[in-house]
Amino acid sequence: KEKKIAVIGAGPSGLTSIKACLEEGMEPTCFESSDDMGGLWKFKEVSEPNRASIYRSLTINISKEMMCYSDFPIPSDYPNYMHHSKILNYFRMYADHFKLLKYIRFQTLVKSVRKAPDYSRTGRWEVLTEKKDGHEERHVFDAVICCSGHYTYPNLPLKDFPGIETFEGKYLHSWDYKGPEDMYGKRVVVIGIGNSGGDIAVETSRVAEQVYMSTRRGAWVIRQVSDNGLPVDMKYNTRFVHILFQLFPINFFNWFGEKKLNAMYDHTMYALKPKHRLFSQIPVINDDLPMKILSGAVIIKPNVKEICGCTVVFDDGSTVEKVDTIVFATGYNYDFPYLPKKAMYKSGHRVGLYKHVFPPTLEHPTLAVVGFIHALGAIMPQAEMQARWVTRVFKGHKKLPSSQSMIKAVEKDTRNIEKSYIVSKLTPLQVDFVSYMDEIAGDIGVRPSLLWLFFTDYPLFKRVFWGPVTAYQYRLMGPGKWEGARRAIFTQFDRISLKYLVHYTPVWDY
Amino acid sequence: KEKKIAVIGAGPSGLTSIKACLEEGMEPTCFESSDDMGGLWKFKEVSEPNRASIYRSLTINISKEMMCYSDFPIPSDYPNYMHHSKILNYFRMYADHFKLLKYIRFQTLVKSVRKAPDYSRTGRWEVLTEKKDGHEERHVFDAVICCSGHYTYPNLPLKDFPGIETFEGKYLHSWDYKGPEDMYGKRVVVIGIGNSGGDIAVETSRVAEQVYMSTRRGAWVIRQVSDNGLPVDMKYNTRFVHILFQLFPINFFNWFGEKKLNAMYDHTMYALKPKHRLFSQIPVINDDLPMKILSGAVIIKPNVKEICGCTVVFDDGSTVEKVDTIVFATGYNYDFPYLPKKAMYKSGHRVGLYKHVFPPTLEHPTLAVVGFIHALGAIMPQAEMQARWVTRVFKGHKKLPSSQSMIKAVEKDTRNIEKSYIVSKLTPLQVDFVSYMDEIAGDIGVRPSLLWLFFTDYPLFKRVFWGPVTAYQYRLMGPGKWEGARRAIFTQFDRISLKYLVHYTPVWDY
Repeated sequence: KEKKIAVIGAGPSGLTSIKACLEEGMEPTCFESSDDMGGLWKFKEVSEPNRASIYRSLTINISKEMMCYSDFPIPSDYPNYMHHSKILNYFRMYADHFKLLKYIRFQTLVKSVRKAPDYSRTGRWEVLTEKKDGHEERHVFDAVICCSGHYTYPNLPLKDFPGIETFEGKYLHSWDYKGPEDMYGKRVVVIGIGNSGGDIAVETSRVAEQVYMSTRRGAWVIRQVSDNGLPVDMKYNTRFVHILFQLFPINFFNWFGEKKLNAMYDHTMYALKPKHRLFSQIPVINDDLPMKILSGAVIIKPNVKEICGCTVVFDDGSTVEKVDTIVFATGYNYDFPYLPKKAMYKSGHRVGLYKHVFPPTLEHPTLAVVGFIHALGAIMPQAEMQARWVTRVFKGHKKLPSSQSMIKAVEKDTRNIEKSYIVSKLTPLQVDFVSYMDEIAGDIGVRPSLLWLFFTDYPLFKRVFWGPVTAYQYRLMGPGKWEGARRAIFTQFDRISLKYLVHYTPVWDY
Repeated sequence: KEKKIAVIGAGPSGLTSIKACLEEGMEPTCFESSDDMGGLWKFKEVSEPNRASIYRSLTINISKEMMCYSDFPIPSDYPNYMHHSKILNYFRMYADHFKLLKYIRFQTLVKSVRKAPDYSRTGRWEVLTEKKDGHEERHVFDAVICCSGHYTYPNLPLKDFPGIETFEGKYLHSWDYKGPEDMYGKRVVVIGIGNSGGDIAVETSRVAEQVYMSTRRGAWVIRQVSDNGLPVDMKYNTRFVHILFQLFPINFFNWFGEKKLNAMYDHTMYALKPKHRLFSQIPVINDDLPMKILSGAVIIKPNVKEICGCTVVFDDGSTVEKVDTIVFATGYNYDFPYLPKKAMYKSGHRVGLYKHVFPPTLEHPTLAVVGFIHALGAIMPQAEMQARWVTRVFKGHKKLPSSQSMIKAVEKDTRNIEKSYIVSKLTPLQVDFVSYMDEIAGDIGVRPSLLWLFFTDYPLFKRVFWGPVTAYQYRLMGPGKWEGARRAIFTQFDRISLKYLVHYTPVWDY
């Protein structure tokens, strides 16, 4: 009998989890509380509570070849950096092609996931759902994949902003921000220099009287238009660079990378320079911010000390008066409200999940979290890799280590993350893209063998070694092998939709 | 008795012409057809016929220190690249400080300028003006300065676009463009890759469904955020670079500059590469365009072959369907409708003006054109230099050569321009900024002597030689010398309004 799997959420992680279930011959049921797929990427004119929210102009900051699923390349007439509407189209095509739609139950909220009465023997879970009309239903599943995302619950740390209660203007979280319509002629303070903060500051600065961007720590800011105009991830997210990173001390790359970034624009001069080194935090991606700073449309300010009426006072003593709007781009908290409190293991500042997927303390490996990760790379291929692993584990092809070993591994991970990254409560999910992909791929047996390729398929080896680590690499061999993978790798530069690129050979493109 | 001078137009050139008249002890009367100063830089929500027009978001592409008048630095809290509203503020401060306002007669249109009956003896001109209420007035002036600009008459070459009469969408000239409000969800074709075309394509692409940018010739596109983040003109518009340009063949700089630009983003890959070399045309300035091309929001297309209903066909055979809007960013024609036809001398494709200022065929040097020029630099300092020269000539301090010599010089200029630049009807005004400034300054006697500075004021020499050619350099010596000039040069990097720049020493800043 087919195993029944519950998939919670039909966003990018949920979709690929459904597909992974099907590929392992299991029967997925996906519960999606809204009326459409796409999760975060489904734009709504008004943000809805307990759902992720994006702004009207959002364009993904990962290039198309680096964000796509491993066996479903994005058509060549799609742009390199896709607007959310195009990403949603891509998800629809994916769902359509792999026939995922019939497994999704829309407008069905998962209220709770509890151990079934026979859990200790079977590992099964009881899932309580609620339809839009209030109708509740109880289901029993052999396993559950949580794909409910981590951009759902806005973090609004008002207590860190003394006097906010006296503020006479309007304040909002970036979660509520849809576009600059309300900002015409306004004086705006954006708090936080993440990707959202950067985007919002730049966008509002085009219509606002003045935008100030307050940052506690500063940030390294990279451009998507990289050397020679290539997408930065196509250029640097290569296996070769990854190997270099393992051969040389990280401070060499910090030095080199910071020098390169400062050559574009001096981060000290632009008041952006953080105390931490480049590779201690996933950098902010923003191509427009430097010009906005240079032209004075965005003025960088340190941390907010206090707010008094319409005046915002900063840590350096400077003040901005007549502030109309404060935007808190202060990130998100994560939560799995439907899970039993005890299901999650706490490790230091973070949720302790074995390889960011499995809670290590449960008796059975029948509950997994997919897409709960943050790297300098897209969620899509990473969630897909996790889902492939998870379904192999559910199916029994793969065994997890003992609970004790997993806890040990989690604690080691936590120490590594704390050592490698400037860790804040809000960024506990940071991993290195290639290392992580390779690790999980190794577990499943789909990590490409460079040695094997070198001897059996040298042209492919060259592309895998020197070229960008596109997800197709993980479909070359092992379970889930896809016949189209080799061709997808050979044509990955052709699909970059720049008119003349077909006639253009990047220097390293053999 | 004071000479009476008519100044036509109260834009950036008119303002500084008024001031130059006053400094030479002459009596200016400035006729301004609109109700405000600023010319081009006075934003109007609806474009007015026979007046220059700008869009709501326009920010100047010359940095503040390179655009300001020579004896009136822009305050340090003004941004490096100023929005038109700030530029207008600056003009108001200038007019206020030098008490120019009382010489301007607003809402007074100059209908004609004709030789006075006694012209052959006196060189005087009869100026016919019309008030807004239709009241006409005749005045006689000893001399006339035309500052009516060259962005007044849109060039709409419809005959070059076969089938435009069948176009079912809306078309407009960039002169009519105010903002992207009407472009939401539209399919837009922007024709022309000048600075306006680039700005409009980028801006509309943020709201349009798709923007196509059609260019006949392509363009080299430079960034304002230059090496280390300095304004590109502060970095490269230096006397040192200028001297290098005179020492080495231009093709060396073409090679070097193109290599540098292609390292930012490959102009071939981005479908921008023109057939002409970098320094054969004043490059387009646009920081946002590359990312818009990379993200596919703007797609570059070749010349339009024909238009048929809603379909636009390009020279390469590709078509774009369902086009809603065509924006002609096809530049401007110039005209001096108020001048006698014979006043202007025609030289090749261009109006032949001696050093871009004096019509060479008139018997008296009592008619001049100021601000009729286009360089990789702002109009303001160039117009000011011209005005200083013009008023010295009017005053009799300087003599012009004979008509024959001037015609000879004009013809030589024309040949040089045709040799150095890709010349089209629309860009007849191109000069090299430093060469031109130095040439006129030499005539007046205000060109800074490097040798003298080297021996008498070495710290100043270093800044003049290695630093940007800010207009203050032309107030160091000679007539019109300004005591503040030296200090303005020493503090020019301090006024770049980047928060930490005060603590920052650029490598060449001694």
